[in-house]
Amino acid sequence: MMNVLVTLAYDGTNYCGWQRQKHDITVQGEVEAALKKCFLRDIDTIGASRTDTGVHALGQRFTFIPPDNSIPADRMALMLNTKLPPDIVARLSEEVSADFHPRFDAKSKSYDYKILNSSSKNPLYNHYAAFVRKPLSVPDMISAAEYFLGTHDFAAFCASGSSVKTTVRTVHSLSIKEEQQNGDRLITLSISGSGFLYNMVRIIAGTLIDVGLGRKNVSDVNDILLSRNRSIASATAPPQGLTLMRINY
Amino acid sequence: MMNVLVTLAYDGTNYCGWQRQKHDITVQGEVEAALKKCFLRDIDTIGASRTDTGVHALGQRFTFIPPDNSIPADRMALMLNTKLPPDIVARLSEEVSADFHPRFDAKSKSYDYKILNSSSKNPLYNHYAAFVRKPLSVPDMISAAEYFLGTHDFAAFCASGSSVKTTVRTVHSLSIKEEQQNGDRLITLSISGSGFLYNMVRIIAGTLIDVGLGRKNVSDVNDILLSRNRSIASATAPPQGLTLMRINY
Repeated sequence: MMNVLVTLAYDGTNYCGWQRQKHDITVQGEVEAALKKCFLRDIDTIGASRTDTGVHALGQRFTFIPPDNSIPADRMALMLNTKLPPDIVARLSEEVSADFHPRFDAKSKSYDYKILNSSSKNPLYNHYAAFVRKPLSVPDMISAAEYFLGTHDFAAFCASGSSVKTTVRTVHSLSIKEEQQNGDRLITLSISGSGFLYNMVRIIAGTLIDVGLGRKNVSDVNDILLSRNRSIASATAPPQGLTLMRINY
Repeated sequence: MMNVLVTLAYDGTNYCGWQRQKHDITVQGEVEAALKKCFLRDIDTIGASRTDTGVHALGQRFTFIPPDNSIPADRMALMLNTKLPPDIVARLSEEVSADFHPRFDAKSKSYDYKILNSSSKNPLYNHYAAFVRKPLSVPDMISAAEYFLGTHDFAAFCASGSSVKTTVRTVHSLSIKEEQQNGDRLITLSISGSGFLYNMVRIIAGTLIDVGLGRKNVSDVNDILLSRNRSIASATAPPQGLTLMRINY
């Protein structure tokens, strides 16, 4: 029995997120439909990370067990791509041990969150960045980002209503970079951590945007963390700015 | 009578190019529909440059004459954006002299052509770059690009069947840059010139791709130029890599 790990990239614009659903078109649904076309039977996949509607991935991972060993694991990506829609691409496939679990064995995950900070919208970023019209103070955002580093109770940065055993997580790094793209200012937050609560990256992004706009002070971020109160943090930043970059094992 | 010049950006993915057509959805058609909603009457626009299906623009220009002077020219962009679809954005509007013509008065135009050069597709670039799987030699492409500089008869780089008075054009600059984007290699050709023949940038891009792949030698580019024969140049590179960046007056 072969366990195959696939690295998957997708444009999430036209999908109701990763997770298979009965009535909506999802990335996992498309992947399992492609596997069915390849193997002519139902094949379950185990995803490493759920992504929401409109969220993208360059390094999603999932495993599946093919019904036989007729195709080498490293050829599975090519085979899948012949059956997948163009906005979902298997970038790598490899054999892993039978007990490998893409979610439980993940050591850390990395996300990018992109913000187009410009006086007018750039339509080429409509689906790939949040849009903020007023100028953001990147130095203030960088100062505020330091509060997130390390191990904290991130209850204030977790979508209300989610049920998890603990809201304690560890953020390993959070960098903020800006670049000029043809006269537009593009700001990228890159965050890595042991794991993330539901909507955690987008609530952190929304809060850092408020700091950049001066709606919140740099030191407010510490108070929000200590409050453990979701209603004190900022609004969840929109999904299209978020990309799941890597899952590290 | 006020003559208004608008700078327009659009994602060309869902449009049959710039130019108004009877039965297809085009950017000019959408712009004129938005103007009609603003002014409650038919308003003609004069575009600076035609773009093809799937080609993008960050710096398209067009002029129109509003029926009255009730709205200042510099407010027209904001007003238009309330009526335009999200993938078309008016970025600037300004008053120009009554005899200003966006096409005839253009001194030069600049285009970018993007190529994703990677062993597997990146779905986030599906609509924004040509995809080339085999490694491209950027130094060879840069050497070949020099042949295009200056004034030449570009008949070999003009879509067959187009009728123009002369196929002589002047290319002012053609730079080729590569960058790493999350492990993918992105190559951008930036070309500026006095004007371009139909499909000229895309045929140049296709020819430089062939040079980068070793299918053509660097010096072949000179022979192709001298031949004035379209069938000797390479295939037209796909539209989604092309963006109209600027029109200079």
